[in-house]
Amino acid sequence: MRRRLRRLGPLERREEAVAFVRRFHRENELGAKACRRREAEVRRALRRDGWYEHTPEELAFGARVAWRDHARCIGRLHWKSLEVRDLRAIEDPDEMAAFLLDHLADAHGGGRIRSIISIFAPVRGAETPCYVESEQLLRYAGYIDAEGRTIGDPLNIELTRTIAALGWEPPEVPGMFDMLPVLLRDRAGRRLVYEIPATARPEVRISHPDGPALDALGLRWYAVPVVSGMILTIGGIDYPCAPFNGYYMSTEIASRDLADENRYDLLEPVARALGEDTGAEPPLWKDRALLELNRAVLHSFSRDGVTMIDHHMASAQFMEFNQRERAAGRPPSAQWSWIVPPQASSACPVFHLPMTDHRMVPNFYRSGADDGAHLRPNHYEEHRHRYRQRLDRWKREIRDWNRAKT
Amino acid sequence: MRRRLRRLGPLERREEAVAFVRRFHRENELGAKACRRREAEVRRALRRDGWYEHTPEELAFGARVAWRDHARCIGRLHWKSLEVRDLRAIEDPDEMAAFLLDHLADAHGGGRIRSIISIFAPVRGAETPCYVESEQLLRYAGYIDAEGRTIGDPLNIELTRTIAALGWEPPEVPGMFDMLPVLLRDRAGRRLVYEIPATARPEVRISHPDGPALDALGLRWYAVPVVSGMILTIGGIDYPCAPFNGYYMSTEIASRDLADENRYDLLEPVARALGEDTGAEPPLWKDRALLELNRAVLHSFSRDGVTMIDHHMASAQFMEFNQRERAAGRPPSAQWSWIVPPQASSACPVFHLPMTDHRMVPNFYRSGADDGAHLRPNHYEEHRHRYRQRLDRWKREIRDWNRAKT
Repeated sequence: MRRRLRRLGPLERREEAVAFVRRFHRENELGAKACRRREAEVRRALRRDGWYEHTPEELAFGARVAWRDHARCIGRLHWKSLEVRDLRAIEDPDEMAAFLLDHLADAHGGGRIRSIISIFAPVRGAETPCYVESEQLLRYAGYIDAEGRTIGDPLNIELTRTIAALGWEPPEVPGMFDMLPVLLRDRAGRRLVYEIPATARPEVRISHPDGPALDALGLRWYAVPVVSGMILTIGGIDYPCAPFNGYYMSTEIASRDLADENRYDLLEPVARALGEDTGAEPPLWKDRALLELNRAVLHSFSRDGVTMIDHHMASAQFMEFNQRERAAGRPPSAQWSWIVPPQASSACPVFHLPMTDHRMVPNFYRSGADDGAHLRPNHYEEHRHRYRQRLDRWKREIRDWNRAKT
Repeated sequence: MRRRLRRLGPLERREEAVAFVRRFHRENELGAKACRRREAEVRRALRRDGWYEHTPEELAFGARVAWRDHARCIGRLHWKSLEVRDLRAIEDPDEMAAFLLDHLADAHGGGRIRSIISIFAPVRGAETPCYVESEQLLRYAGYIDAEGRTIGDPLNIELTRTIAALGWEPPEVPGMFDMLPVLLRDRAGRRLVYEIPATARPEVRISHPDGPALDALGLRWYAVPVVSGMILTIGGIDYPCAPFNGYYMSTEIASRDLADENRYDLLEPVARALGEDTGAEPPLWKDRALLELNRAVLHSFSRDGVTMIDHHMASAQFMEFNQRERAAGRPPSAQWSWIVPPQASSACPVFHLPMTDHRMVPNFYRSGADDGAHLRPNHYEEHRHRYRQRLDRWKREIRDWNRAKT
């Protein structure tokens, strides 16, 4: 974990902390006096300990803004409604695992998926708290059998090995969709494995709306994606354990997880099941298999009453988010290659939208050497705010002067 | 045109010229002596006139390398086979128009499309030569009728107005696919219009392989895309008139020209013609219309024996190009958002390839204020070459020393 954290010098940390405290007070209109007091407090704590504690309100605000400013997410329209769970006091791995199961159950909510983030202890000085090592809470096992063939999700072969080495027993006949337990690492660096009971991880069986053509493939996917492999950074403080969830966009499962060559690689079996000629040139059967997989995934989630968004709707929502943020004076951060859906790309309005990643904090990142590099507080808004204040004062002065004249 | 040219100071121009001369001699293995002689010649000409003339071999090499290094093109595998026409002596607009018609006819070649570039006079000092103002030699007219509806290609409404103001008469009943004449600008800045005879611009009628469903829409497209709106820059010398062509990738017509909302916007009519429910939510009928349009375009070009590449094949060829270039010690320039096809994106291997634009010259650009900004000669190869030479000398010395010992 240490290697994955962003490296901040004391001055940089202070800069981020101060910028965050000011943004928090400004956006929530808490007044200049409260802001100055809190800023002094934070500066003192940083001088004394090298870190400071967020108030629960700051934490909730920081997590929501981190989502709002995360350039790779298309589904940020509802950033204000993120439910933030302040679990900074939970240090015991067993307790942590219990709260993760709670998160899974509440996020699913019988199908109406809610966006939740569970925030555990931050990095305080040299201490690294307990954290989740799995990329997502739910992951399917990946195996290589005696003949060298891959079974399950190739992405998780390494993770499966690690978990098996810690005592987990895979099913006697390894399957395509064996759910892995969650892998935690405690404060001493020990790895711990927690099974997830079936009730906490509802899955959706994938069937095609036009008939049973795909049934023989036995496809399914879990309902709730809970990302646990990202570090939340707020005002110079890193939270290495802050799993969060949204709901799925159909293409994530249909066009990537099930279709990518280095994942389940199912385009050929799906095309064959649909009666396509997979030897045809040009290989537009791939395009058709993708389309039908997307239809099947959308149909199946809807059949089971589980929240899911299609790429057209997600794209429209992002346009709305973009407009709202601009109207609020905050040009949003976005990475085109992550935002544009991989299905019917140019028919989605986001395809035609120029995007820039301003790399702001608060944010989520995977590694300080990669996507965490170059994250920095963005001061333009603060400057704009000060400029506004000065403008207002001038306007008042001119008005008073005009009044005095008459 | 002046406004669109890159602005180079004399030192920058000299740097680009020298870098180009060295690259030309190095890649063609013409020897250090010839290189030094030519370099001195170019430096002298630059000091004297502020510009220099490329030899025919330099011109051909420069045009091919400009294509090879153009970050937005997926079809660069065959960059060496580009046919270069040296038309720098042609200054009369009428003659120029005749050569453009030749270009169109030869590029089509009865269906087996050849990649050709016709290079007319460069910018020499303060003189701007005659050039083509249309973005492509072939463009369909766009009109706004009395009710405010758009007919034809909305992209070309402005161009159509300009051309009509110069005396061109559109058909009595404006159609969806009325071919515009070519618009030239002569040395004095006067605009001139040249009709293209029907024989020089073969078109392909778009029909669907499964039946006549799309026939009522009356779709067609021209066979050869000749890009005439880009400036070719080689070794500090700009060629504002250097129209070039390749062949079409199916998605350019099917997923963009005919489908984009700000172009022909045909997804809904196509879906209805295919019997889809265009009120359905989620609107996956868009995805299906895109797929069927792609099938129809590929089928129609193949039916007429006109060269066309599908996005899967183009993607595979780009992977091959990428590998060959890397093997030659030249990591290729590429812009992900331009290279990845808008159809079945993640099923194309280029989707998973990290790309960088090194912004090298020689290159093609539209405007010095936009895509032409930041173009610069890339010296890393030269350095690598010198380092290689030194390494070879050291190796030789060590070998000789070892021999002397024994």
